[in-house]
Parts: sequence; C-alpha cells; structure tokens
Amino acid sequence: MCYIKDLYKYEGEEVTIKGWVYNRRSSGKIVFLLIRDGTGIVQVVVSQGKVSEDVFGLCDTIPYESSVIITGRAYKDERAPGGYELSFENIVVVSFAEDYPISLKEHGIEFLMERRHLWLRSRKPLAVMRIRSTCIKAICDFFDSKGFVRLDAPLLTPSACESTTTLFEVPYFDTKAYLSQSGQLYMEAGCMALGRVYCFGPSFRAEKSKTRRHLTEFWQVEPEVAYATLEDVMKLAEGLVEYIVASVLDKNSLELEILERDTKLLKKIKNPFGSITYTEAVNLVDMDWGGDFGAPEETKLSNMFEKPILVTGYPHEIKAFYMKRNPQDDRIALNFDMLAPEGYGEIIGGGQREDDLAKLEERIDEYNLPRKHYEWYLDLRRYGTCPHAGFGLGLERTVAWICGVHHVRETIPFPRTIDRIYP
Amino acid sequence: MCYIKDLYKYEGEEVTIKGWVYNRRSSGKIVFLLIRDGTGIVQVVVSQGKVSEDVFGLCDTIPYESSVIITGRAYKDERAPGGYELSFENIVVVSFAEDYPISLKEHGIEFLMERRHLWLRSRKPLAVMRIRSTCIKAICDFFDSKGFVRLDAPLLTPSACESTTTLFEVPYFDTKAYLSQSGQLYMEAGCMALGRVYCFGPSFRAEKSKTRRHLTEFWQVEPEVAYATLEDVMKLAEGLVEYIVASVLDKNSLELEILERDTKLLKKIKNPFGSITYTEAVNLVDMDWGGDFGAPEETKLSNMFEKPILVTGYPHEIKAFYMKRNPQDDRIALNFDMLAPEGYGEIIGGGQREDDLAKLEERIDEYNLPRKHYEWYLDLRRYGTCPHAGFGLGLERTVAWICGVHHVRETIPFPRTIDRIYP
Repeated sequence: MCYIKDLYKYEGEEVTIKGWVYNRRSSGKIVFLLIRDGTGIVQVVVSQGKVSEDVFGLCDTIPYESSVIITGRAYKDERAPGGYELSFENIVVVSFAEDYPISLKEHGIEFLMERRHLWLRSRKPLAVMRIRSTCIKAICDFFDSKGFVRLDAPLLTPSACESTTTLFEVPYFDTKAYLSQSGQLYMEAGCMALGRVYCFGPSFRAEKSKTRRHLTEFWQVEPEVAYATLEDVMKLAEGLVEYIVASVLDKNSLELEILERDTKLLKKIKNPFGSITYTEAVNLVDMDWGGDFGAPEETKLSNMFEKPILVTGYPHEIKAFYMKRNPQDDRIALNFDMLAPEGYGEIIGGGQREDDLAKLEERIDEYNLPRKHYEWYLDLRRYGTCPHAGFGLGLERTVAWICGVHHVRETIPFPRTIDRIYP
Repeated sequence: MCYIKDLYKYEGEEVTIKGWVYNRRSSGKIVFLLIRDGTGIVQVVVSQGKVSEDVFGLCDTIPYESSVIITGRAYKDERAPGGYELSFENIVVVSFAEDYPISLKEHGIEFLMERRHLWLRSRKPLAVMRIRSTCIKAICDFFDSKGFVRLDAPLLTPSACESTTTLFEVPYFDTKAYLSQSGQLYMEAGCMALGRVYCFGPSFRAEKSKTRRHLTEFWQVEPEVAYATLEDVMKLAEGLVEYIVASVLDKNSLELEILERDTKLLKKIKNPFGSITYTEAVNLVDMDWGGDFGAPEETKLSNMFEKPILVTGYPHEIKAFYMKRNPQDDRIALNFDMLAPEGYGEIIGGGQREDDLAKLEERIDEYNLPRKHYEWYLDLRRYGTCPHAGFGLGLERTVAWICGVHHVRETIPFPRTIDRIYP
C-alpha cells in the first residue's frame, strides 16, 4: 500500500492506493478518476479497450465518495497537481457510496456546516485543517525549544476568570462548576513553580454575539513567565507569531495555493512588528478615549498595517481585574493586544499581572468576584510574589488570518456557536 | 539574568538568578540557601564576615518561598545536584513570603491537594509535571513524524460516546450539551477525510468511583486510521508507548531520580510488547468468561508481565457499541486494551470500528442511543465506509506508570475528582 503523497518514490512501479472517488471526467474512451486518500489527490487514467467493458463501465459510473482500492502504475506528469498520475490496472470497490450530498457547486454555509463531517473531505476544508495542524505543532515546538514546560489548566473550574456573563455553568455532583474561559490564573501558579509554562487547550465563552470572530468553544495557547515584564512577553508574542507563519509557509505551500492565499503578505511577517499605544490607536480610528474597539474599529486599525500591530496601554476599566496598572499613569493597564493585518484583528491579548496582594484584593472586591474562590490565586501574592506576565493567542483567529478565511468557524474541525452543537 | 539550569555556561562568572528561597541550612558561620527558579535548584553559600551582618542575618532568616534576586559567582561542585554552586555576592528581596504552609515534612494528601497551586513548587510534583510535559511533546512528535494530521474534537457535544451514565450535562443556551467523553467518533469522520488523524485534549467522565485510576477530567490522545485493521493500530500503539518512554528516559533522568524511579524497568519497554487474548487473560486471573476485569484482576494481570501487555478480543457486551465484532466469532470484539506493567493496568483501549451501516444502526438501537444524534456518524458508513481502527491513550495513567506514582491525581496539574474542583 502506498500513500498518494509518496507516489514520487515509486515512479514506474505498480502501487496500490486506498481511498475515495473524489471526482471524475469522462471523454468517452477515457475516464479520469480523481482519487483522494487524505494525503493527496491523484488522477487515475482508465482507457477503454485496455480494461474489460464491466470495469470501464464501473469506473465511468461509480458514485463519488465510494471507497476504493486501486492498483496502477505511477508515472510522472508535470501537469498533475502532485506531479504524478496513475495508469489504471485494477479496482476493488470497498463500498459504493449513497448519493453524495456535497457537490463541487456552491452550497450555503448552513448546509455545509450541518454536514461538517463530510464537508471536511473537500479541498478547502482539508487545506485549512492541515494548516491548523501545522500551527499547533509550531506552537508546541516554539515553546518547547525555549524551555517552557507545558502545564495544562483545568477546564472545570470553581470560578470565572474573565467576564462572568459569558460563563457556561455545569452541574458538578452536588455543587456546580464553570467551563474555563482561560487558563491564565492557573498558569500564574505554574510560572511560580516552573518559571516558564504554557497551556494549550480549549476555552469556552457563552458568547451570544454572532460575529465572524467568535466561537463558544475555541483553542488558545497561554504562556506565562515569572519575573517577566510587559515588554518581555511582547517580544515573546512577536517571536511566536513569526515562527507560526514561517512554519506554514515552509510546510503548506500546496494548501496556501488551494486557498488562493497571497503569500507575499505572509512573507512580510518578520520581527519586529511595531507597536502603538491605545491612545494613538483611538486617534487613528477617530474614537473617544476610554472605550474598547468595536469590530469596525478593530478591522480599520488592522487594515492600516502590513504586519501585526501591538497596541499597548488600554484603559484598565475595559480589561480584566488581574491586569497590573502603569505606575506612571494609573488609568491604563500594562497590557497589549496584537492585531493581525488585513482586517483580521485581535489574535493575542496579554500583559503584566497585578503582583501586589493588597491591590489585587481591592480589585477582586471592585469587580464583585467571590473572594473565597480566589483565595488560592491570592496565595500567589502571599508567598513569593514577583513581576510576571503572559498572554493568550487564539488559535482559530490566527489560522483564519493565515489561511485568509473570513470566518473563524471554518478554522476548527467542528465549530460550536450559539446555534450549533451538531455534528 | 541566568537560569539555574544554564549555570554551567558561566563557570567563574558573576551571574544573577531570579527565584525563590526553597530551603536553608545554617552552620553558625555559613548559611546555605537553596534557591529554585523553575529550571533547577542551586545552593548559594553565604559566609559570615564576607557580607555585612544585616545581609547575613537576612539570609539566615528570610522566610521560605520569598522571591529573591541573587547575584553570585558560579563554580563547579560535583556534590551539588546540578553540578554547580553559587558564592554569594548580593541579594535583593522582591517579596517576603508569609509563613509558608508546606514544609519538607509529610503532609496529608488532602492538605496538599487543597494547596495544589503551592504544592506544585515542591520537588516531586515538579518532577512529575516535567515528565508529563515530555510525554505530551513526545506524543505530538510521534504522530507528526508519521504523517498524522492533528484534528481536535469538540468538547461540547450533542450526544454520548461511551456510557451515558457518566455524562456531564451543560445547559447550552436554549438546549443542552454534554462534555465529551472521547473524541473518537469525530476522529472517525476525520480519518475518512485526512487518512490518519489524532486529537489530543481533555475528556470528561462523571465518575462517582474514587479509585487511583480515575479523574473526572483527564487528557487522552486518540489516533484514528482509515483502512487500518486491529493489528495495524496495535502496532501503532506499541510504537507510541515505546517512543514516549524513550523520550522520558532521554530527557528526564534527573526527574526520574528525584522520583526514585527504577529506570531498569523502563529501559525494558521495547517492541514488540506481546499480546494475549481476553480468554487467556481470564484464565490467568481465575475469572469467569464474560465480565470486565475489576481493579484487582487488572492489577494482577498487569503484574504478570515486564512490558505492557496487549489483551485482545473482549466480549462485545462489555465494550462500546461502535466496536466491530470478530467475523469468526460474533461474541467477541475486534478490540484491544494495553495494560502497563507493575500493577498500573489499562493505559490504552482501542480497536477496529463497525463499518457496516446496517449493523451499526442495529447496535445504536440495541444500546438505546438516540438515533438522530448519530445520523452524522451513520453518514460515515453511507458515504465510502471502509475498515478503520484507532485507540485512546490516557495521559495521566501513562504518566503515573512512567513516574511510578500510585494515584493519577498527582499526574495532572489541577486534578478534578468527585469531591475536588478547587483550586
């Protein structure tokens, strides 16, 4: 057995591939079968006269997505997508497919999402999933190479980390738990033990808004570094994003081509990215100082730069309770957001954490958070507190930008939104 | 600034480390401070007379876990754990710790678990977490090197995958969802699209049993391969486990030493592991044919072999609905479990999946599962079904075995059990 991506190793030899009928062209005397096997697509050339009438008829009519085992001889053809074709020798039909609901014509997004388990077999979703997989591997390799220890945060938690209005509550035996919105608080405990840690897993937000940037279940990677400042983690974030983009350019040129992605833009993603202050940003988009950027402002800002832009020093009121404030100007937080270019907007949020016990206690009260759920978090300030900082990178938003896909729902295998938990 | 693990690069030079006071020995005229920074522990030698009385007094009394920045000169000392010590030059106290609740004396497990956020700073939990991190990286590298695409399964799902009695239900806007017990069904969709896929993330089981092998939230990696048989994935599982153990032996000798792990046993973990049938296994432990192994039987079996043992062909009644049955003997499933040695028991469960539509429909009805939630899963048998197989490896059980830790709760950063969701 041979995978389609490995055909080049078997030039002139007889090989057997196991896959599915992806498409077909017929010209009367020749049938061109496109077979996919998950690693690639290859064209199999079936000539009338060279095979029995039955076999030719079978190849000419077999339904799309039927599973087949095909034997043939591999030969080089520069016009073929993978550079190789197969001359047909034999076919074994593993299973005839029923009438396949997804055709190459355009379908509505709801129709496709309802059939996500099948739609994943199509060329574009396949390309996006391969790029997502590359991004995940790049993230793990990046942190591993820098000496970070992976320390996964729990998803069942006793308390909120970000906004309490977007929490999913879970009955938990005789009590209740919440699905984690972020692993950050746990990473703060982790960095006090291991210096540099990261978690990488799903997070949940009961988002009622239907926007192209929101899912109820999404993946994020969250590094946290003891004795680090805002500037330190801004550099770390730039390094990470540069590394992810470079990995995709290196490994997924075929997929980027399928997605018709302009790689010239991606090749510009090199450090340093550059940063502006929140105050400069609000001026750029004609907004009043104090509020958060809405989707239109974020898109506008994000369109102004060729590379991701780091925006620093937001008003602390619109940021989470744990953000440290600027000692020179108490109105603003020691934080940053990274906005991807081409209108994609925020892919990273991070900053330095409040490390002073008294101030943090005050904030927790101010934000009306239940103190007893945060006692363990306050312990981190009682026993050897120190400056520390970190950030969270949203995987789906990053993949959407790199792929040039408009909506994040296409960047996760099985998206979850306010009106979708199926399939 | 210098990390303790890098001290060897700076022999004879003045370096600054940032960390916490881990321990201290005093001999009147000399104070030995043990400083940890997450990457290691180094002994700092403070001699009376060479520093001011104030500084000496400070070093002699500073509370454990206070955060400190220490400057000193690195020198080689073969007796030191990392091979290097620091002669003291200067100390800056970042924060004096309150009276630290965890001492080097023995504490009860509940006392420590309630302070897990601090306990993680101790030598043994640190070693286990480093080994866990190595295992995760090894798993990702293994599947990446074999051409698998990582395809994460959703955690919010409309239906049960394994037992319906251990589901966590989540109110989801106007409907309800369940926390995923396994990503397998989604991986079956994935392998029909991408050939070889795996997911790696948390799973949930509302386990009421308090055993050393169960958590309500645990991590598992689940590969699934199209056109693969039971035998194919058994080989894959052996390769994976061999690779994980070899990675830990390679990268974590220091941690294994801290855990007093007998590495002679781990060094024997080489392919092939060997397999026995379920029928042979029940005879070995004097059990009646038909039931599942209880904890005592599993422990007994697991103690009989030096390497992990693969047990194949369980009665289908005690396995999930999606298991394919042996065509030669309809009573048994085409499945396998892998039991780790030394009494650790099951770390992997897997097998070949039912690929026949009619049989699968029958099973779903037999198991009283709601058909409409499985329509998408049945689609995989309608459109190009083929033999396929996969397995799930439980991360915490694997780490427990490799570390020689008795209870899985010590192998995850923040364990969740029936009576614990804090911290």
